[in-house]
Amino acid sequence: MAGRPSFAEAFPDANTAHMDNRNTSVSIITIGDELLIGQTVDTNSAWMARALNDIGFWVQRRVAVGDERDAIWRALDEEAAQSRVILITGGLGPTADDITKPVLCQYFGGRMVVDEGALANVQHIFQLLNRPLIERNLKQAEVPDVCTVIPNRRGTAPGMWFEKDGRVFVSMPGVPHEMKGMMEGHVLPVLEERFRPTPVVHRTLLTAGIGESFLAERIRDFELTLPRNIKLAYLPSYGMVRLRLTGRGGDARMEAELQAEFDMLKQLVTDVLVTDEDKGLPQVVGDILDGRGQTLSTAESCTGGYIGHLITSVPGASRYYLGGAVAYANDVKMRLADVRPATLAAHGAVSRETVLEMAHGIRRRTGSDFAIATSGILGPDGGTPEKPVGTVWVGLSAEGREAASHFHFRFDRQRNAELAANHGLNALRKFILA
Amino acid sequence: MAGRPSFAEAFPDANTAHMDNRNTSVSIITIGDELLIGQTVDTNSAWMARALNDIGFWVQRRVAVGDERDAIWRALDEEAAQSRVILITGGLGPTADDITKPVLCQYFGGRMVVDEGALANVQHIFQLLNRPLIERNLKQAEVPDVCTVIPNRRGTAPGMWFEKDGRVFVSMPGVPHEMKGMMEGHVLPVLEERFRPTPVVHRTLLTAGIGESFLAERIRDFELTLPRNIKLAYLPSYGMVRLRLTGRGGDARMEAELQAEFDMLKQLVTDVLVTDEDKGLPQVVGDILDGRGQTLSTAESCTGGYIGHLITSVPGASRYYLGGAVAYANDVKMRLADVRPATLAAHGAVSRETVLEMAHGIRRRTGSDFAIATSGILGPDGGTPEKPVGTVWVGLSAEGREAASHFHFRFDRQRNAELAANHGLNALRKFILA
Repeated sequence: MAGRPSFAEAFPDANTAHMDNRNTSVSIITIGDELLIGQTVDTNSAWMARALNDIGFWVQRRVAVGDERDAIWRALDEEAAQSRVILITGGLGPTADDITKPVLCQYFGGRMVVDEGALANVQHIFQLLNRPLIERNLKQAEVPDVCTVIPNRRGTAPGMWFEKDGRVFVSMPGVPHEMKGMMEGHVLPVLEERFRPTPVVHRTLLTAGIGESFLAERIRDFELTLPRNIKLAYLPSYGMVRLRLTGRGGDARMEAELQAEFDMLKQLVTDVLVTDEDKGLPQVVGDILDGRGQTLSTAESCTGGYIGHLITSVPGASRYYLGGAVAYANDVKMRLADVRPATLAAHGAVSRETVLEMAHGIRRRTGSDFAIATSGILGPDGGTPEKPVGTVWVGLSAEGREAASHFHFRFDRQRNAELAANHGLNALRKFILA
Repeated sequence: MAGRPSFAEAFPDANTAHMDNRNTSVSIITIGDELLIGQTVDTNSAWMARALNDIGFWVQRRVAVGDERDAIWRALDEEAAQSRVILITGGLGPTADDITKPVLCQYFGGRMVVDEGALANVQHIFQLLNRPLIERNLKQAEVPDVCTVIPNRRGTAPGMWFEKDGRVFVSMPGVPHEMKGMMEGHVLPVLEERFRPTPVVHRTLLTAGIGESFLAERIRDFELTLPRNIKLAYLPSYGMVRLRLTGRGGDARMEAELQAEFDMLKQLVTDVLVTDEDKGLPQVVGDILDGRGQTLSTAESCTGGYIGHLITSVPGASRYYLGGAVAYANDVKMRLADVRPATLAAHGAVSRETVLEMAHGIRRRTGSDFAIATSGILGPDGGTPEKPVGTVWVGLSAEGREAASHFHFRFDRQRNAELAANHGLNALRKFILA
């Protein structure tokens, strides 16, 4: 790369805001061939980043490497050169390709010993499962003698805490709920106590029905005049954009300033605002229903149960969600949601008339206050010139009221389903509030 | 890190199999603060890795950095030192925090110019959307004059192909379907043509009902005697483990060898084998039903529509899936799935008796050949001493036949739902084949 200017030469005015707090910079290293061959989507890193961010740590890099000694070694070297805290997940399983532990042992110059606590834990778990303990599993109780063991209450592989040259290295299993248990029970509190990061405060709002670029245009002046210690992030997903203000400082003055900026931002997006809290659309809809003591049912054709799944992903959904029909086949639309054969014959399954009858039908059957119905063609096949792939109708029903919306999505089956569910839930939200 | 042995000293016998093919090594760089604050899960990298792997490229590192000039610059330097191909996604949006393009322009020593093709594309898309074109969007048609433009048929941000010192750098938008369109339409074919990687062949099978460590124990001898050019990967997820053999070479001899090893592996796991093809459980169940010309309905309580969603995620599901009920409230279990009030009173909603009545009821109502029903307590609340959180019953019905299974999951709500759906679908598969 000869002749290329250095970074400092190229960007004399570079934004170094993220570097203010070197003390709280974190790198996440994820280890496992399964991440590099694409069989596993890494959800751990996002969860860890959010949890760290909430207590004032800044994740500056995330690196994924395979189950290969030199790749792990090099990643440890590189990240240690940049971050104070290096969190490592994966590669601690009982199979031959899990080599993280011996590599860490060598890296930190230790030797493997049996940890009595970890051994008792492995024995306890196998007793609970009523399964024979094999040699391979006993190996999981071995740790380098240069680490502090972090107990794993949810699995057999212990966590390991290393320190070297003022840096903290923590190795945890890649199994999400085991990693989360260790982070919440041990790693996060100890890191917070140890590094005392500058607290950060987030305020988040959710918009729907406006594209990222139009939103950016609308709030450009607001963004340009934000104080230095408050940062705006755009987080778009499936027809919605989340806006997040993050304030650094943690004192009452900063919090008041953040609140004032947040109120201003809300004013600017009031017509497209879904919620000014950090929660998803299913929770927003659920909270509205819960607050009113009203109930909901669903009659899903093209979304196949996905809206029901989203609604029931919220704990306590049984207080307001009754259930409904997955009215996939036309026959089931008639049998479980009382759509009339004549309606299907005259207008087809993907029509305003059909989704309204589905919504009214399921509401009457379940006795709910509100009902939402979907019918559409998500692809890749099944489109016609009049009703191409991506056509979706959403019907809404309440006592003496109805509404229907029509969408046309241009994506693949999975994404069209996500969009149909989100747009449907947002239409339902407006319908309930109308 | 003084005093630490070098990698070569520490591991004189290091496994360098992955390094055989330096010519086809790839790094993926993902750019965006949203990845570092944990608001977005990176699904792009897994998709890209899989697509690259399928044509013989090896992703050796994945790195995520923020929208920060020096972090991007450093990542470009580091990955160029290790890989021949560097694929970059994200940071090309229209908002102020998207700085990838100017940084790349400077990195490769170019200047920004308007690309006529990209401009026409932006104008075309806004015309389609019937929206006014704003300055911010026009900017998206600007590219460094030192790149080859990759057309984006699914969005406004063009892709950019750079070459330097024998390395290829490709920058693409972070929006998944835009990235995928560019990869499939341009990047993958050109990389394949250019680098002619050694072909790889994968053979994958799916097991259920056996833990990773027991599976590893069972196939240890098989694994130890695998030829050097064939590699085994364990890919566990939610109660299932996928086993993948990858052969490198691409000639008929290697393929025959791979097939022989795969047949041997199948023999070893025959009792827990779900499928010997690379497909998911919903597709396996669907294919069985489709092949027999039989149909399925669902009556879901605790899974809230998730099983229906999984089944309808497979294109063509309407050939065998009729739909059913989301019987969340007890009242809906009675109204839509004909559960008797006496059964609920005597045994409760989470019981063998109730799920069997649900399954029989929905099967009769829909006229399907098979039906699956679920009822359980996924948490975090609602558990009792007799039926703690995680208790799930699955009921199955066919003409003159029934079966019920009972599970106890120990995780959080989301994971319990995944496990209930997967275990339920696997029980259904066995029930259909019985």
